[in-house]
Amino acid sequence: MINPIKIAVDAMGGENSPNKVIKGIDIHYSKSKEVFYNIFGDENIIIPLIKKTKLTNKNFKIINTKNSIKDTDSPLSAAKKGKDTSMWLSLESLKNNDSDAMVSAGNTGALFVIAKLNLNMIEKIDKPALSALWPNKNGMNIVLDLGANIECNEKNLVDFSLMGSALHKSLFENEDSRVALLNIGSEELKGNNTIKNTYQILSEKKNPLFEFKGYIEGNHIMDGNVNVIVTDGFTGNIALKTAEGTANFISSELKKALNSSFIGKISSLMNLKNLKKFKSKLDPRLYNGAILLGLDKPVIKSHGSTDELGFANSLNVCEKTIRGNLIDKIKKNII
Amino acid sequence: MINPIKIAVDAMGGENSPNKVIKGIDIHYSKSKEVFYNIFGDENIIIPLIKKTKLTNKNFKIINTKNSIKDTDSPLSAAKKGKDTSMWLSLESLKNNDSDAMVSAGNTGALFVIAKLNLNMIEKIDKPALSALWPNKNGMNIVLDLGANIECNEKNLVDFSLMGSALHKSLFENEDSRVALLNIGSEELKGNNTIKNTYQILSEKKNPLFEFKGYIEGNHIMDGNVNVIVTDGFTGNIALKTAEGTANFISSELKKALNSSFIGKISSLMNLKNLKKFKSKLDPRLYNGAILLGLDKPVIKSHGSTDELGFANSLNVCEKTIRGNLIDKIKKNII
Repeated sequence: MINPIKIAVDAMGGENSPNKVIKGIDIHYSKSKEVFYNIFGDENIIIPLIKKTKLTNKNFKIINTKNSIKDTDSPLSAAKKGKDTSMWLSLESLKNNDSDAMVSAGNTGALFVIAKLNLNMIEKIDKPALSALWPNKNGMNIVLDLGANIECNEKNLVDFSLMGSALHKSLFENEDSRVALLNIGSEELKGNNTIKNTYQILSEKKNPLFEFKGYIEGNHIMDGNVNVIVTDGFTGNIALKTAEGTANFISSELKKALNSSFIGKISSLMNLKNLKKFKSKLDPRLYNGAILLGLDKPVIKSHGSTDELGFANSLNVCEKTIRGNLIDKIKKNII
Repeated sequence: MINPIKIAVDAMGGENSPNKVIKGIDIHYSKSKEVFYNIFGDENIIIPLIKKTKLTNKNFKIINTKNSIKDTDSPLSAAKKGKDTSMWLSLESLKNNDSDAMVSAGNTGALFVIAKLNLNMIEKIDKPALSALWPNKNGMNIVLDLGANIECNEKNLVDFSLMGSALHKSLFENEDSRVALLNIGSEELKGNNTIKNTYQILSEKKNPLFEFKGYIEGNHIMDGNVNVIVTDGFTGNIALKTAEGTANFISSELKKALNSSFIGKISSLMNLKNLKKFKSKLDPRLYNGAILLGLDKPVIKSHGSTDELGFANSLNVCEKTIRGNLIDKIKKNII
């Protein structure tokens, strides 16, 4: 193993951790050998869990931590807990170049604040953004910002276009990035002034990293004509959560419909294989891993309630951001 | 028929009109006898269509119009076409008290502008809002604003809470209105200042028409714990269209999954009845009819691409807003 990439893992955050975290590392390790895991957490719990995995001493190091951040902690009180938490120490290992990327399934607000305390912003980027994967008919969108910034100006939205494209290119190297601004009409005249000004800037100043495709309305997010969707954090968060709520509503109604009669039960059994294929395409664990963009190291937030498979996918996102040179791509293409 | 309610119908707006409009009137009439339809449009086309229906001369009057507004007209150019269009004349019949409510499947922007030119705002309401029905687990939400106002202040959002509740109570008289503000966190501290101030006002000044339930996130819109969801027009439009896009994506993926094998085809045939039940619950035609609130008469916008069943449902919304005394409910409860 020559110069493996190093991932800092906060093992204590999120539901059912560190159990799902260690199992997730095991799943990720079985597919991707050239990775070294710096695991931050309570070694008394972690060591017995690791013994059940295929990991060897060459692949990981446990950094014993005594304290951890709860989901109920406010970002400020979490930051005040300071340096002996698994989240703080794993972010500090990024700062000290002991790790190349960091992942946590813990408290999002705390992760955001502690990451900003430990890491530098990329030069010329004013605000960090929270981005995530969102399926479309042809593959995957990157959508940002999803809640880091309630209000954004033109410069922020232009930066988000660049950062989202760099991320898309890191994750899907064979695809070209196509950016659209989320708006309420496809004509040039709708939307607020910030969006209209951003449209002007992106139309005039071409960026080698992406093609600007104009506005997109909410009902076309999943069409697959673009793959990087840019908006402020308020709108992005509402859109993402509304899509999630709609998907949950439809799947629960569908379940009710399929189970409401004897014939329904039999035929849905017959259909199980197809329905499974359908579900696997929409499985939120496949898209697990929100990415904090704008900091000078990749910080990945796994969903708190995901399982080991979801956590393994967020480790995969970590790996791809490193191998895809995400940070360099952003730095080189800032205009 | 003693004092039937009178609905002004713009017969020329939307796809496949006036055909679907006249068929929609026929469907509505068969369920609801005490209604008189003032039909605005080209009588040369409409009279032959009416001959195929069960309508008698006692139930309708045709007001012949020579001009109509196209979907491609800008709101301003539509307004300039002036008084000889079916849309203008049907709104004017509201102004002259010849009709009690008006419905059109035509150009939304034009309808908005021409309605404002012809009708007065309800006293003390500053801005009109576009509202619509949105299904939840227990029944129906009213969601507003859906695009009439890109930016809203506290007073507007408080007014929308009142108007949305009045509409919900008019449509579903046995239910209590429960209002929530769409936001990105359920804690009191998140969101922008306008939303936080609105929260304060609604918490302090109780309104007899509704109970204020605080904030709601996008993923809980369809849970059914509240039934009036208030937001600015930009956010509301993005949320509604994102939900629509998600539903379309899921149903097309589901269709693909069910048709992808022979077994799948057979079992989905067996499942047809259940899937139909499922689809009928989510049928957008059932929720057809966006309502312009804030004007002193009810103005209903049918979806342009709906069919006769959808148009009949928007006539049903017209009828309910009149019988439910929507405008009086708003006037009486303004604080």
